Amino acid sequence: MTALPARHVAAESSADKLEEIRALVDGELHEVNRIILEMMQSEISLIPELARHIVAAGGKRVRPILTLLAARLCGYRGTRQIGLAACVEFIHTATLLHDDVVDESDLRRGNPTANAVWGNKAPVLVGDFLFSRAFQLMVADGSLKVLAILSNASAVIAEGEVHQLVTANDTATTEAAYLQVIAAKTAALFKAACQIGAVVADRPEIEEMALAAYGDNLGIAFQLVDDALDYHAKQALLGKSVGDDFREGKITLPVLLAFARGDEEERAFWRRTLENLDQTPEDLERAQALLARHGAIEATIARAEEYGERARQALAIFPYSRAKQAMLDLLDFCIARAY
Amino acid sequence: MTALPARHVAAESSADKLEEIRALVDGELHEVNRIILEMMQSEISLIPELARHIVAAGGKRVRPILTLLAARLCGYRGTRQIGLAACVEFIHTATLLHDDVVDESDLRRGNPTANAVWGNKAPVLVGDFLFSRAFQLMVADGSLKVLAILSNASAVIAEGEVHQLVTANDTATTEAAYLQVIAAKTAALFKAACQIGAVVADRPEIEEMALAAYGDNLGIAFQLVDDALDYHAKQALLGKSVGDDFREGKITLPVLLAFARGDEEERAFWRRTLENLDQTPEDLERAQALLARHGAIEATIARAEEYGERARQALAIFPYSRAKQAMLDLLDFCIARAY
Repeated sequence: MTALPARHVAAESSADKLEEIRALVDGELHEVNRIILEMMQSEISLIPELARHIVAAGGKRVRPILTLLAARLCGYRGTRQIGLAACVEFIHTATLLHDDVVDESDLRRGNPTANAVWGNKAPVLVGDFLFSRAFQLMVADGSLKVLAILSNASAVIAEGEVHQLVTANDTATTEAAYLQVIAAKTAALFKAACQIGAVVADRPEIEEMALAAYGDNLGIAFQLVDDALDYHAKQALLGKSVGDDFREGKITLPVLLAFARGDEEERAFWRRTLENLDQTPEDLERAQALLARHGAIEATIARAEEYGERARQALAIFPYSRAKQAMLDLLDFCIARAY
Repeated sequence: MTALPARHVAAESSADKLEEIRALVDGELHEVNRIILEMMQSEISLIPELARHIVAAGGKRVRPILTLLAARLCGYRGTRQIGLAACVEFIHTATLLHDDVVDESDLRRGNPTANAVWGNKAPVLVGDFLFSRAFQLMVADGSLKVLAILSNASAVIAEGEVHQLVTANDTATTEAAYLQVIAAKTAALFKAACQIGAVVADRPEIEEMALAAYGDNLGIAFQLVDDALDYHAKQALLGKSVGDDFREGKITLPVLLAFARGDEEERAFWRRTLENLDQTPEDLERAQALLARHGAIEATIARAEEYGERARQALAIFPYSRAKQAMLDLLDFCIARAY
């Protein structure tokens, strides 16, 4: 028997790291899952059926974990973080359902997407239902400040999704536009998830802003790594199908870097495959080779590490605690997924 | 020149009636439209473009008018009804965008739907954006009670839409299930739109419940008439394409009645056309003939009139006022659309 390649080992140990972080909030996360299951119930059985498919499909629950850790970091001793963590996960889940419809994806985390199983109609409507449930959870929490943070985040997310749609298939997209897209579609919810931890604990604004900055930068790092993984993940291991972004003509940083660093013939390749979506089965491999030639994956991950460093610095105002350590470990986990 | 057929005249005078009602709240409605235009702005130009297409496409604004009239009926003298009326219209608009995607509709009010112009992706995401905006408007209003009413209504609406999807193409759907669908997908927002009028005016619960009952019954009557119109409206006049429900295999009361009253051969027709969606160009005419034979349209409208009467009775606890009269006129308008 041959040893596992180094990357497998790194990915597995990064999964272990997530398990350790999760263990710290295990009891609360159990409650979060209970609320999620409870709130996705409906007389209309298609709703829990479809919701279960995505909610229970083994997402990493990174966003609700952030809310739990942030509340704990702030010394909060109540139970409001539970419902709000569930709420954050519902917003995320609603977004995923709509994303998969928009992207026409067939696989998510290695499983068939809801739209692949039920068609487009039910996921659009069940997404709306889960989104409404998220707001019911916020109303039950009763804080207008939390409602403001999360409704603003929801608008920003939707705006980012539309922005992504507009930049798709456009190799003239700038890095700045790309960063704006991922800050909105991904980082806004990471940011809000962390910020509300400080709000429930009634901490001063400087702590709230520090947690928001941590979440924002972590979210950007997370998405950068995700975009890198789309061109080099081991699908079986990470439950991500390689090449989705390529097939959809999504413009991500690895591509923008390779495009900028490429010659005219290479740019013609990117235009044909991503703008015209005129692709042959060999094109993904060609794309990966071009990314490798220009070090585009490494550069993307290096950028993720920079944002990770900013996230780390944002936490500097907090004294050491197990929660803080877990949040730093979560940063490492997000970056380590790339290897 | 020949005179207009009687139905044209009735439809035109019912449009006049709506104009009269609208005139009563004209100044406020103008403000509502201003907020709508303001809140659909975004740096991402596709958002206002697409939102303008549907928001400004000349909807009747029945739901925001309800909020304005209900607040006035309750003697409210402030300005909160304005933002909340805009919020109600945003929820409605988001639902329409998603509905048209789900129904694969090409026309709405005689104009191409957003999905016919932009495809499915943008309307799903812009719908999410408008829905988030609705919640931002509620948060700006600052009443947790209003937030509870509207977030509950949103969940009920989404649930009703999924329920409708489940009953589509199923001629075994019961009248009870049909009524449950329309109470959820349509009446819930009418109900909430009216109820929040009493909430902003801080009126006793009995008035809040009376307005909720008025909106609920009006909404059911409205949808019953809509479902009847789908088989006999003059498209050019009412901006509704006849036969949409039939082509989609939607199970509505006219069909349920004709199915129940039909013989085996007729039921086989409904099963072929609505369950199997195996339709020829002549089938819509055949369907209309069967509905006529069994008086299914008249029976549906009679049912709408019953719900209209319940709505009228719900307002009995309020003394005469111009706002009350306008709400009664609105009832008449909703029924009169049928003729």
